[in-house]
Amino acid sequence: MTTIADIGKRLGVSKSTVSKALNNAPDISETLRKTIVETAVEMGYSKLRQNKKEQKKLCILVENMDYTNELHFGYQIIIGFRQLAEPAGYQVDVIPLDTAMQRSMGFDAFMLQRHYPGAFILGMALNDPWMNDLQTSHTPAVLYDNYIPENPATCYVGIDNSEGMNLAVKYLKNLGHRKIGYLSTSLGSYITQVRHRTFFSALRKNGLKSDPRLAGISFHVSECVQKHVPKLIEQGVTAIICCHDQMANATMVQCREAGLKIPEDISIVGFDDLPICAYTEPPMTTVRQDQLLLGKCGYQALESLLEGVPVGTLLLHASLVERQSCGDCGRVKID
Amino acid sequence: MTTIADIGKRLGVSKSTVSKALNNAPDISETLRKTIVETAVEMGYSKLRQNKKEQKKLCILVENMDYTNELHFGYQIIIGFRQLAEPAGYQVDVIPLDTAMQRSMGFDAFMLQRHYPGAFILGMALNDPWMNDLQTSHTPAVLYDNYIPENPATCYVGIDNSEGMNLAVKYLKNLGHRKIGYLSTSLGSYITQVRHRTFFSALRKNGLKSDPRLAGISFHVSECVQKHVPKLIEQGVTAIICCHDQMANATMVQCREAGLKIPEDISIVGFDDLPICAYTEPPMTTVRQDQLLLGKCGYQALESLLEGVPVGTLLLHASLVERQSCGDCGRVKID
Repeated sequence: MTTIADIGKRLGVSKSTVSKALNNAPDISETLRKTIVETAVEMGYSKLRQNKKEQKKLCILVENMDYTNELHFGYQIIIGFRQLAEPAGYQVDVIPLDTAMQRSMGFDAFMLQRHYPGAFILGMALNDPWMNDLQTSHTPAVLYDNYIPENPATCYVGIDNSEGMNLAVKYLKNLGHRKIGYLSTSLGSYITQVRHRTFFSALRKNGLKSDPRLAGISFHVSECVQKHVPKLIEQGVTAIICCHDQMANATMVQCREAGLKIPEDISIVGFDDLPICAYTEPPMTTVRQDQLLLGKCGYQALESLLEGVPVGTLLLHASLVERQSCGDCGRVKID
Repeated sequence: MTTIADIGKRLGVSKSTVSKALNNAPDISETLRKTIVETAVEMGYSKLRQNKKEQKKLCILVENMDYTNELHFGYQIIIGFRQLAEPAGYQVDVIPLDTAMQRSMGFDAFMLQRHYPGAFILGMALNDPWMNDLQTSHTPAVLYDNYIPENPATCYVGIDNSEGMNLAVKYLKNLGHRKIGYLSTSLGSYITQVRHRTFFSALRKNGLKSDPRLAGISFHVSECVQKHVPKLIEQGVTAIICCHDQMANATMVQCREAGLKIPEDISIVGFDDLPICAYTEPPMTTVRQDQLLLGKCGYQALESLLEGVPVGTLLLHASLVERQSCGDCGRVKID
């Protein structure tokens, strides 16, 4: 295994310089520190063999997701993780990410330098710079709603979206709906791609006609509903499943503006079960993600990776929360 | 929640009779005991609230799988499960299953009557009677290599077969192979279906032509290789992936009988990494399932279900064990 001496030898610096760099000592230049950390990562030097005295700590890295109050999607995920990690003796640091930070340093180097043996990563899009690093990284990382194939140091945690989509389609079919539409933000994240794909496979599984025109996709929620809701209604769609609850809420507003009553004229299903869903007009039927349990699963998966068990996928069963945004299929009326 | 008194009232028997039936007392008829247990299950009576004094116990139910010595596939799976369950205070009973036993009593009733709060189930085929029960059962059950959709009391544990198949196809493609065949036993189990499906998706993912004639399927291994190996060779296949290691070993024998050298003339990849793979002629390249870790994951998933966390899927990363049954793509010669 790589030692501090090996790293020093490769770079022609002393062991103590390497040690200073890896421990963030102030009397070393930023450039040299970066070179040493990157060389350490390249040579497979592992944080796990460092000083045992310091407190064990893990990080939750968050990009593209709000988490600071209880109405935010990430809030309960982080609580769930901490509820298991902290009693197990870990300090948990929550660190917001941005692309500049990701570009300034590789993922393994970041983790090594900050002395984190493992990370729980929330909200990464497919074009985030570290998504590339994670293809070949060595530091245990659990990703919420992102799947990295063939890297045994990474695990994907989420709900079973295929099951959730199937629950939604089956439920609408049982209410008599035969033509169901789908609205989504851009397919720039793993999970929007999965939901888009499983929407069509759920239609086929339930014996309903699958047609690409049944899905409307735009980057912005407002653009998406303004552009695609009228098109779906024109096609005779009597129910719409949305990629997330905000989209579903905007869809309900848009439908009402078009003179449609919910659920009499059109049924709407969301995805996620955000706290707002109980208070939308009408209260929203949605596929639930239990964020607290997802956070706990995130910790359990990370613990497995840290113990050398290459867990790759850990999915919670999905469930459908029935409220009042869906009804028996009637004829869509446009006044 | 349902009590013993509720069950007695429904059936018009005393509380003590119900209690006797649920505790296997000898002074009660087999017919009455069966009726009481089935009614208890139907009414949602849960073992979890029974006598706390007795030792906690779990069962491993095994059908269609050998497990009694270290060369058997199930051996290490059971050891892995016990390595975590026993230190946690559980007695683990290993119970062989057959269809007659499954037909004589429902799954929930069996578990309730034997006082098992949860089960780890190995080797079930899709037509096993309890596979139906498991669609709607309430007793926590983790299934190795079987997926039950939409039942939050069940979890599927296995390796990521899609990833494993992709590793095998990519590996062969990198060796220059462009026409790869697949041999499988009957598609009567969840996992043979998954491997068959993922074989074709792996071909497509790697930019290779996918053609149904590239897969040969027969119930018996000997029939499969005798019938399909010549057909695959005739089609110009230069590599064959097999649904399991025994099939791969038989394929190597069959190829040699047809005058082909392995790996010079044809490459063979197995699935599972059984202990025999290191000693086949030549030693076999295969997709590994780490049985010990699978057993451990089985326990971890069952623990989650017992704690009310509806884990639905837990997959280990697959890996490819490179031995000597694959080589650079040459021209297939038939002498």
